[in-house]
Amino acid sequence: MSSRTDASGIDLSLLLDTAYQQARLGLDEGGIPIGAALFAADGTLLGEGRNRRVQHDDPSVHGETDAFRAAGRQRDYSSTIMVTTLAPCWYCSGLIRQFGIGAVVIGENRSFQGGQDWLAELGISVTILDDERCYTMMSDFIATNPGLWNEDIGVVGEENRT
Amino acid sequence: MSSRTDASGIDLSLLLDTAYQQARLGLDEGGIPIGAALFAADGTLLGEGRNRRVQHDDPSVHGETDAFRAAGRQRDYSSTIMVTTLAPCWYCSGLIRQFGIGAVVIGENRSFQGGQDWLAELGISVTILDDERCYTMMSDFIATNPGLWNEDIGVVGEENRT
Repeated sequence: MSSRTDASGIDLSLLLDTAYQQARLGLDEGGIPIGAALFAADGTLLGEGRNRRVQHDDPSVHGETDAFRAAGRQRDYSSTIMVTTLAPCWYCSGLIRQFGIGAVVIGENRSFQGGQDWLAELGISVTILDDERCYTMMSDFIATNPGLWNEDIGVVGEENRT
Repeated sequence: MSSRTDASGIDLSLLLDTAYQQARLGLDEGGIPIGAALFAADGTLLGEGRNRRVQHDDPSVHGETDAFRAAGRQRDYSSTIMVTTLAPCWYCSGLIRQFGIGAVVIGENRSFQGGQDWLAELGISVTILDDERCYTMMSDFIATNPGLWNEDIGVVGEENRT
């Protein structure tokens, strides 16, 4: 498990709480429980969001893209921190790369892994918190909703490939 | 220049016209002129869209993500074709990879290059049409709006790096 405090002394588990609450809200709405939040380097919340494939019938709204949108137009993302309950998929990893987001904090990466290694190789700070709440929430959801989960990550068929 | 007809005999320049009209609409709205459209393998239009950073004050809406959203929830993207006036950035390339979109048709890639080679290496069909209308529209826009363009691709500073 990586450190829960970053170089600036910010408690990353507190930042994760914001993303986790978004994921819980999504679950309560009947959605896929993935939440995210974008923070400034000093821990100021810029935007938070959650997967809304089900709620808005919109496949383009992943947790990270929703938090990014909620943060509005920023001129420089290099010192921002994207916090997400689940390892970012390639779509969200591409977002992080294109806009030069400086750091990614991941609740858990046991249920799914997308582009986290690619981002790290590009010099983006990647921290895995291996948070048990996030893992339990996601793995329970995947076990009971394999079709919906596969749809969300573009996997064809009913098998639950992660 | 690549062939303008795909393996199924579909005229790709006709598909590009749809994306181009979206980009022109965006330009008329005062936005960044990038348009896209998602088609089924037989050329049926599934969704079309355009960059709306300016119009909606929303940094998450690129041409490809807007077209993807407009197409609604699809169960299998493997035979779909994403057509875009400009080479897809990393954000949109990540979308194409994650959802397994089978083919990408690019109006022009002289103004900007994102993940097109990465997608080709992954086995996705990538066709560059090198369309003069698309290039003129985009290069003129970049020349007169370098700050807005840089913001859209996450480049910090006023210089026009592509």
